[in-house]
Amino acid sequence: MTVSRRIVLAGGAVAGLGTAAAVAGCSAGGASGGRAGAASAPVAVSGPGIGTATVAFHGPRQAGVTTEPPAHAAFVSFTLARGTDRKALGRMMRLLTDDAARLTRGEPALGDTEAELAVHPAALTVTFGFGPGLYRAAGLPSPVADLPAFTVDRLQDRWCGGDLLLQICADDPLTVTHAQRMLIKDARPFGGVRWVQRGFRRSPGVHPAGFTQRNVLGQLDGTANPRDAAMETAVWNPDGGTTLVVRRIRAEIETWDLLSVSDKENAVGRRMTSGAPLSGTAEFDEPDFAKLDDTGLPLMPDFAHVTRARMTDPRFKILRRPYNYDEAPDAQGRPDSGLIFASYQADIERQYLPIQRRLAEKDLLNEWTTPIGSSVFAIPPGCAQDGWIGERVLG
Amino acid sequence: MTVSRRIVLAGGAVAGLGTAAAVAGCSAGGASGGRAGAASAPVAVSGPGIGTATVAFHGPRQAGVTTEPPAHAAFVSFTLARGTDRKALGRMMRLLTDDAARLTRGEPALGDTEAELAVHPAALTVTFGFGPGLYRAAGLPSPVADLPAFTVDRLQDRWCGGDLLLQICADDPLTVTHAQRMLIKDARPFGGVRWVQRGFRRSPGVHPAGFTQRNVLGQLDGTANPRDAAMETAVWNPDGGTTLVVRRIRAEIETWDLLSVSDKENAVGRRMTSGAPLSGTAEFDEPDFAKLDDTGLPLMPDFAHVTRARMTDPRFKILRRPYNYDEAPDAQGRPDSGLIFASYQADIERQYLPIQRRLAEKDLLNEWTTPIGSSVFAIPPGCAQDGWIGERVLG
Repeated sequence: MTVSRRIVLAGGAVAGLGTAAAVAGCSAGGASGGRAGAASAPVAVSGPGIGTATVAFHGPRQAGVTTEPPAHAAFVSFTLARGTDRKALGRMMRLLTDDAARLTRGEPALGDTEAELAVHPAALTVTFGFGPGLYRAAGLPSPVADLPAFTVDRLQDRWCGGDLLLQICADDPLTVTHAQRMLIKDARPFGGVRWVQRGFRRSPGVHPAGFTQRNVLGQLDGTANPRDAAMETAVWNPDGGTTLVVRRIRAEIETWDLLSVSDKENAVGRRMTSGAPLSGTAEFDEPDFAKLDDTGLPLMPDFAHVTRARMTDPRFKILRRPYNYDEAPDAQGRPDSGLIFASYQADIERQYLPIQRRLAEKDLLNEWTTPIGSSVFAIPPGCAQDGWIGERVLG
Repeated sequence: MTVSRRIVLAGGAVAGLGTAAAVAGCSAGGASGGRAGAASAPVAVSGPGIGTATVAFHGPRQAGVTTEPPAHAAFVSFTLARGTDRKALGRMMRLLTDDAARLTRGEPALGDTEAELAVHPAALTVTFGFGPGLYRAAGLPSPVADLPAFTVDRLQDRWCGGDLLLQICADDPLTVTHAQRMLIKDARPFGGVRWVQRGFRRSPGVHPAGFTQRNVLGQLDGTANPRDAAMETAVWNPDGGTTLVVRRIRAEIETWDLLSVSDKENAVGRRMTSGAPLSGTAEFDEPDFAKLDDTGLPLMPDFAHVTRARMTDPRFKILRRPYNYDEAPDAQGRPDSGLIFASYQADIERQYLPIQRRLAEKDLLNEWTTPIGSSVFAIPPGCAQDGWIGERVLG
C-alpha cells in the first residue's frame, strides 16, 4: 500500500550520498553534488515496500557502504576476549556472516529466539569492520591504525576503539534492535561489547531519495559526496575492501544557539535555509572561492567549514555516511546530541587525514562541534554465498 | 512521491489502536479487535506526505491520545523549580502552548534557533500532562495520585514521577528531537528535566495503518484496545480531559530467550506467530476462556497475560499507546530493552488499577517483565486557538 522510496531508487532515481563531493566534519560543507540524479552506482535494493525491501548481502563488496543510508543505524564495537585467535575469529565470522545473510533476507538467524522480528528486513544491511586489535589477535599486520590526536579532540574512552565493528542499518528501528540482539548474542563468546552508538536520519518517506538531510545543528548535511566514477575511486580498493572512520562529534548546541543566522552561515560557508554556498544562490551551486564581496573580502571565508573541507581531486575525497544522535538531556535541559560521523575511503592516510588536518587546524565550526569518540576499521571485501566475510584475511 | 499511510488513514482506513479491547502490561494480551477497519474515531491528520502531515493541535481535547501513535516518541518529565506558583505555571503553559501550536503546524517556535528543523512536522503531536506536584505547586487539589506499590515493581527513582509531562510524538525522529529541544528550552526557567524516555514503533510504511506491532519480546503488542463508542467511554471525561499512566517496563530478554515457543505462548495466552489466542486460530478471534483441551484443562491458562488482563466492560478498559525502547547493552551484551507502557483512561482508579492489580497478582508474564519506572498525569482538556492548555485549571 505504500510506494517505497527504495523502489523508486531501484527504479533509477539515485541516492544523494552517491552523488556529490567530499567533506569531513559535522556539517553540510563540501562542494557541488546533487539531488538531481544522473543514474550511478547500481543499488541492489528490492521488495514491494519499506518493510520488505532487501539489500543483497553477498557480492564482491560489502553492502551498507555505497547503498543509500536508511533511517536507523547501530554501530556496535567489540573488544575481543583474551585468547580469541585467528581460528576462533574464523569461527566467529562464519557464524556472524550466516546470521547477517539470513537476517538481511528477512529470515530468522539460526537459533533466532525472536524469529517473528526477522520478517521485516526494511533494507537491512550488516557491514563488518576489523579494527587494529583484530589483526593483532590474528597475528597479522593491520591495514589500519588509530588516528593521530588532533588538538580539537576531547575523546572519551567509552566512545573509542574496537576490535570488531558491526554497522547495522535499516529503515525500521525494531529491525535494527533485533539484528543487533541476534548478532551480539552470537558474537559474545568471542568478545565483549565496547560501545554501541544508535543513530537516525529522516524516516522513510519524509524526503524523496537523495534529498539532503539536516543535522541537529539545522545544517544541510551530506550535500557533498563523491559520485559515479569518483565514488569508485574514492571508496573501493581493487580487492573490494575499503576503510571506515567512525567519529562521535558532539554538537555544542547551547552556544551554537547564541549565534545569529549570519554568524552560523559564515562558520559553515553556506546559507542555513537553502544550503547554498555564500558565493552562490542554490544548494548545488559550485562554491566560488575567488569571488569577493563589496569590501574586497572572499565571499567564502577562509575559516569556513566548506572552504577547509574542500577537496577537488576525486582520489582525495571521502564518502560521508553520517547519522544523528540525541541522548537524554541533563537536568538543566542541555542536550546531548550530535553526529555519528562515518566516512568510507579507500585509504585513511591518503584521503581522510589531509581533510581532517585542514579542519582541525582552522575550521570555525570547531567552536561548536567536539569530537568525543574515534575509531578506525578495515572493511574487508564481501563474500560469495558459500563464503564468509574476512575469509581472505583469516581463512 | 511516497503514498503516506497517514493519507490512507485520513482517507478512511482506521488506526489499530482505535480498534480493540483493553490490556495492561508488556504484551499483546486482551481480546478481539481489529486491523480490519470499520471507520471510527475521526483522526485529524492531513498533508501530502509523511513529512508534511499535520495533526490539529487545537480543539476540545488534546491531540496525541486517540490519534494513531506515530513511529517515534519522547516522554519528557519535569520537576518544577521552587517558587513556580500558579501564576508562573500559567505563564509557562501559555508559552509552551504557543510553541506546540506552531511546531505541530510545521512552523518554527517563536525564537526558534533551528527554524529549518521545524518544516517537517511528520504528524507531530505535543500532549501536556500535569502530575500531582504541579497541582500542589498551584495550591490546588490533584485529580491524580501516584500509583500504589505493586510487589512486581522494581522502581528506580530516575524513571519515576514528574510534575509536568510532555509527550512528543512524530513519524520522524529529527522532528521529535527538535520539538523536544525547543520545548525544553522554554520550560527550563520553570523547572528541571527529571527524565526523558525515547521510544519507537515501526517506521512509517512498514505496516499499513492499524496493523498490530510487535514488541522487543517478539509479541504482537496492541491487538486489544477500546474502539469507537467504547473508546469514548474509556478515555474521555466530559470536560475533554483524561489521565495518563507511564510505566517503564524492562523486558528480561535473556531469560525469556531460554523459553520454548510453547512456554512463551502459555505465558502470553497467544500464539507467537499469529497472535491468535490459544483457544482460537486467528489474531482477532475472541478468546474462549471456557474452552478445554484434551486433558480437561482450559486452553487459555488462568495465569496467562491475556486471561489476567481481560476486561469486557468498556467502562473498565484502558487505551494502550506503548513505545519500545532499546538502550545500549552492557559489556556482556545483555540488552537494556523494553516497553514505555503508556495508557490513557478516564479514571486511573476505576480502570487502570483493577487491571494492574490482577496482573501483579498472577500474570505469568511478570517473570519476564519488570516495571522500573512509574508516573501518573492528568491530561487537561485541549484549548481553542486563542486559549492555552491548562487554562481551566490554572487560569
